Amino acid sequence: RYGYFGQDSPKSVCLLLCNVSGCLTDGHTRISSSGKEQVFINNKDIIGLHRLKQGGVKVILISTNEAPLTKVLAKRLWQRTGCQVRQLKNDIQGEVKAIVDKECLNWKQVAYMGNDVPDVDCLGLAGMSAVPKDVPVVALNAAKYKCHKAPGLGAVREFAEHILLLNKSAKAQMEQDCNHKNT
Amino acid sequence: RYGYFGQDSPKSVCLLLCNVSGCLTDGHTRISSSGKEQVFINNKDIIGLHRLKQGGVKVILISTNEAPLTKVLAKRLWQRTGCQVRQLKNDIQGEVKAIVDKECLNWKQVAYMGNDVPDVDCLGLAGMSAVPKDVPVVALNAAKYKCHKAPGLGAVREFAEHILLLNKSAKAQMEQDCNHKNT
Amino acid sequence: RYGYFGQDSPKSVCLLLCNVSGCLTDGHTRISSSGKEQVFINNKDIIGLHRLKQGGVKVILISTNEAPLTKVLAKRLWQRTGCQVRQLKNDIQGEVKAIVDKECLNWKQVAYMGNDVPDVDCLGLAGMSAVPKDVPVVALNAAKYKCHKAPGLGAVREFAEHILLLNKSAKAQMEQDCNHKNT
Amino acid sequence: RYGYFGQDSPKSVCLLLCNVSGCLTDGHTRISSSGKEQVFINNKDIIGLHRLKQGGVKVILISTNEAPLTKVLAKRLWQRTGCQVRQLKNDIQGEVKAIVDKECLNWKQVAYMGNDVPDVDCLGLAGMSAVPKDVPVVALNAAKYKCHKAPGLGAVREFAEHILLLNKSAKAQMEQDCNHKNT
Repeated sequence: RYGYFGQDSPKSVCLLLCNVSGCLTDGHTRISSSGKEQVFINNKDIIGLHRLKQGGVKVILISTNEAPLTKVLAKRLWQRTGCQVRQLKNDIQGEVKAIVDKECLNWKQVAYMGNDVPDVDCLGLAGMSAVPKDVPVVALNAAKYKCHKAPGLGAVREFAEHILLLNKSAKAQMEQDCNHKNT
Repeated sequence: RYGYFGQDSPKSVCLLLCNVSGCLTDGHTRISSSGKEQVFINNKDIIGLHRLKQGGVKVILISTNEAPLTKVLAKRLWQRTGCQVRQLKNDIQGEVKAIVDKECLNWKQVAYMGNDVPDVDCLGLAGMSAVPKDVPVVALNAAKYKCHKAPGLGAVREFAEHILLLNKSAKAQMEQDCNHKNT
Repeated sequence: RYGYFGQDSPKSVCLLLCNVSGCLTDGHTRISSSGKEQVFINNKDIIGLHRLKQGGVKVILISTNEAPLTKVLAKRLWQRTGCQVRQLKNDIQGEVKAIVDKECLNWKQVAYMGNDVPDVDCLGLAGMSAVPKDVPVVALNAAKYKCHKAPGLGAVREFAEHILLLNKSAKAQMEQDCNHKNT
Repeated sequence: RYGYFGQDSPKSVCLLLCNVSGCLTDGHTRISSSGKEQVFINNKDIIGLHRLKQGGVKVILISTNEAPLTKVLAKRLWQRTGCQVRQLKNDIQGEVKAIVDKECLNWKQVAYMGNDVPDVDCLGLAGMSAVPKDVPVVALNAAKYKCHKAPGLGAVREFAEHILLLNKSAKAQMEQDCNHKNT
């Protein structure tokens, strides 16, 4: 059972940090002679992000040095999903920690979605974490939830539904405890 | 057995309403630094749409707010498929109902193809309905027919062949009933 | 055993007619707001076409009305594969028959690769014929060889290797008969 | 056991030669009416190339006549991966031999990744060699390691991890032998 330990109030996920490349997208870098850039996002995943926000979960999309997003692309992504997009530098763990602190949250209230070696630390630290299908073993082992869907093909939606379910359970548990206390 | 209930004449499907994004296309939104848009349509599906029209089934392609089509793209889609393309606003069910009424049909004569939460009402109301492979559970449960093919890879064709078969059965049944009555 | 019937000399495949869309390509029509067109061809398939030519089999790529190729695209396709590209009109069977006659061949010496309803006649008439994976049932039933590979992902290469093997058998058979006659 | 034969010092892989088309990319040639070119590279594979370099293995990307890279594309590929990109002419084996000689290595210290007929010689000669999933049989048989991942979808990463593991074993073996000798 998630989010409830001893006398603490049950913890539900308040923030999802999601690596864009290889989670929301298929993880391909398109190298073109014209220099144009393009990413593909599945509408299933976009609906998943909307559902999280409706359910009170904030979403921050992060982009790492391994697969940087241009400013134009980051802006369009923000327009399309309605989620903040942050470009991180090399020290992912440090920067993610700063985001979590600034949101006045602790790691237990944070969900993290990543897909490779640079995400391993955050996958381990976050209260809930996930990887898409077909990621390297080191990332697979670090993740608490392993999606059945491939990156760019519904993995984010799958994790979003999983988070919504966890939050529902945490809320039900909290109400039950409340009633119990009041009896 | 479809389309025959008591003394009513057997009902066959007269109109297919098909959500473009995630049924006829793969459901990807392409975010490009150049701002150009592009959708992919499989020729198998285009042939399926032609076969429906040859079989007397009208097809209206619908595009929802979740994945809007630009006017240019909608026009090209119409040129390529020969089917009407309608951009819906937020209230899908209401707008689809208006289309059905304007065509002087009832829901039993309508087939609907969708793939996600916003389509669930129409999937339930239509006499015949389908979803492609790998859709969220809520849509899968609402659909009367679950395609084996993925979106953008023949799901529309598969549903088109299914509708043609149903209509053939309904016609055969009607003729049989006619002969029986005349005997 | 192919290519040998009674006293006729063993027949091997001299010409491959291959529908571009849905065999050599993935069968997608790309509808873009910029009006640009693009097709994807796998290098495995290109090498397959080269191997056929090295093996003495002529290849003509055909493009039908269902998925027309622009002149620019047809020219680039010819440059890339070194094969003739012909744009057919509506009567595929008639036009293909004319090609076969002009090459002074009969249907038994011709291999045809197609993938849908418009190809069914030619799939039946050709001495050897094939469809890629995941084609509509009517095309699958008409084809003499059913590829395990999907369109645009090696189906043409697979059929090319199959033709080369058949021709090798036919040649071996002819030599054996020759030796037998001379004994 | 790799890299150790008799009294020779254990051999580990010092250089990876990797055919770009069909190994690092999906092997598609994009034929566009605008003449622009584009290749897709998965970030998993890029991280694999970085990990090899960190592990002391040099990587040279090669591009053959079957699927030439334009200069612009080759340059962008180099910027993105940090690896040399070499355009080979027709005699792949000869040119690869020259590269190996120039690096003062022998074939046993070289790993080669290819995917089709033109790569067969090098797949056989290299001390370690691999092909992605779904390659023609002739290439599959020539390769010492057969990847489970498809080209452009992690095959290079898989082979990279395999090489790193081999080198780790070779190093452990060398140290063990050293200790044994000193005892």
